[in-house]
Amino acid sequence: MSGFALAVDLGGTKVEAALVDASGRIADGSRVRAATGAASHRADLRAAVGTVVDGALAALPAGGELRGAGIGSAGPVDLVAGTVSPKNLPVLAGFDLRSDVQDRLPGLPVRLRLDGTCIALAEHWLGATAGLADSMSMVVSTGVGGGLIVGGALVSGRTGNAGHIGQIHVAGFGGTAGDVDSTTLEAVASGTSSVSWARGHGWVGTSGEELALSCADGEPTAWAAVHRSAAAVGQAIASTTTLLDLDVVAIGGGFAGVVPDYVDLVRQAARRATVLAYAAEVLIVPAALGSAAPLLGAAALVHRPEMLDPTRVGPRRLVSTT
Amino acid sequence: MSGFALAVDLGGTKVEAALVDASGRIADGSRVRAATGAASHRADLRAAVGTVVDGALAALPAGGELRGAGIGSAGPVDLVAGTVSPKNLPVLAGFDLRSDVQDRLPGLPVRLRLDGTCIALAEHWLGATAGLADSMSMVVSTGVGGGLIVGGALVSGRTGNAGHIGQIHVAGFGGTAGDVDSTTLEAVASGTSSVSWARGHGWVGTSGEELALSCADGEPTAWAAVHRSAAAVGQAIASTTTLLDLDVVAIGGGFAGVVPDYVDLVRQAARRATVLAYAAEVLIVPAALGSAAPLLGAAALVHRPEMLDPTRVGPRRLVSTT
Repeated sequence: MSGFALAVDLGGTKVEAALVDASGRIADGSRVRAATGAASHRADLRAAVGTVVDGALAALPAGGELRGAGIGSAGPVDLVAGTVSPKNLPVLAGFDLRSDVQDRLPGLPVRLRLDGTCIALAEHWLGATAGLADSMSMVVSTGVGGGLIVGGALVSGRTGNAGHIGQIHVAGFGGTAGDVDSTTLEAVASGTSSVSWARGHGWVGTSGEELALSCADGEPTAWAAVHRSAAAVGQAIASTTTLLDLDVVAIGGGFAGVVPDYVDLVRQAARRATVLAYAAEVLIVPAALGSAAPLLGAAALVHRPEMLDPTRVGPRRLVSTT
Repeated sequence: MSGFALAVDLGGTKVEAALVDASGRIADGSRVRAATGAASHRADLRAAVGTVVDGALAALPAGGELRGAGIGSAGPVDLVAGTVSPKNLPVLAGFDLRSDVQDRLPGLPVRLRLDGTCIALAEHWLGATAGLADSMSMVVSTGVGGGLIVGGALVSGRTGNAGHIGQIHVAGFGGTAGDVDSTTLEAVASGTSSVSWARGHGWVGTSGEELALSCADGEPTAWAAVHRSAAAVGQAIASTTTLLDLDVVAIGGGFAGVVPDYVDLVRQAARRATVLAYAAEVLIVPAALGSAAPLLGAAALVHRPEMLDPTRVGPRRLVSTT
């Protein structure tokens, strides 16, 4: 009898669910998606979660056993309360996503984590960072996010928000004094920010896709915007690798494909921004799992509990996150 | 019968050893120090290590049992090879410190770690970060260093160099384009860098001690230099806390006492540089253990093995560091 995890992924624009077996295979017909949209009411979102969860569960193969549910969510999250407050869905602030899923799966474990950390889990389980103890998986898309594996285990941190690489600061890319948001990696390097920077320098397109086409045509401002993004991502990788002495960093997300050699550009930039020799040896590779990564990582929360954070100590800690 | 750890700390200017019991108490008369000095030959350094180790061991109380040795060293280190290459002692590059100590303690465990990580271990065992799962301990002195505890365990990383917070980049403090060293935290915020910055802005002293006196006199350039240091340290804490969702950061080192409210200034700067709410809740506190911290952390390598990194996986990993 096969055991399946219900995997749920709540992002800024969609919620998705699927059944995933212990080898990381998605059960046929079980991957179901619904739009959320920035204007959603909480009731609409609750209904959308219900729709995708029920749809996935309906595809449970004959003889298949449901082992539990894993949920990845756009952040910030609050693992103590079991709630999520996705930045791009302000109407959802404090949404009790875990209990919403738990109500449909009485008696089964339901585990929630930040979506970036789910991607890191997925790449460590089945993808580009497998077999190495210390890694970061990043997503460069409309925003910039990520997740960390240290000593072979997911790093969640005090509230579950470890991995927010998009909100660390990067040096030398301008920004406004006193505007703390302007020097973050995301503010410099995301697809959205790169389009905005290019437009501010005379380029006339409006999307990452158009920026990719302009780069393919050799348009110099578009190229400069993409190089700037890669330079900032590389510097953030250099800082993080210096701090954590990582083995490997995997880079995914739509904007990481804006030019064919984006990961090469990041690798070169990371080398340039690295001060100490050990950190220059980090492997920088493309992510392996594509759009299924958040679902596969959510499934790992059920199938690979040994990859989750070790037992926590201390009064400020989350006591239980099952 | 009491069990003691031989603790050894190799810094840029001195090597020190002591016997430490399982409660973190240094045995009477066992703390021995010798100068190293930037001009040391390797043979001189080897002799200095021998002197302090023999001196400490000679103080073993009657009935006391030696359990093993822990060594903290200025970095970078190479835990796979067991060697150290302190930045401030270039003549020592690749010095086989672990085997040097092991030769004097046949059959006993000898464990080596970066000094910054030893300080983090010590503060977690006996000091300012005890009881909390995720922490950073920093030293702001002639340089800037640190160490990380995640999930209650020391983070060493691939080669043992995790914790090098002084070599991450900080935004908005100038620096020269193309000079990768100029935007690191250490280049902006260390005592050495702060003195240099103040001199470049017309202040006429030459040391951190003189900078402290000028601050006490209300001299504006000295104050500006110290505020700049605290602002950079605060930003680096904001980035690191955002990335790891830390509970607490402890700040020690001589320059952290340059003004009485240095830690307050850092705390304010960290809040200003924090983008996401969860990271604003980090506790920022003075380190508790002072100059004994590296020795106490080295002793923890023997007495508190459960605080060391969990089992590692993967082909690029250090296989054994005992």
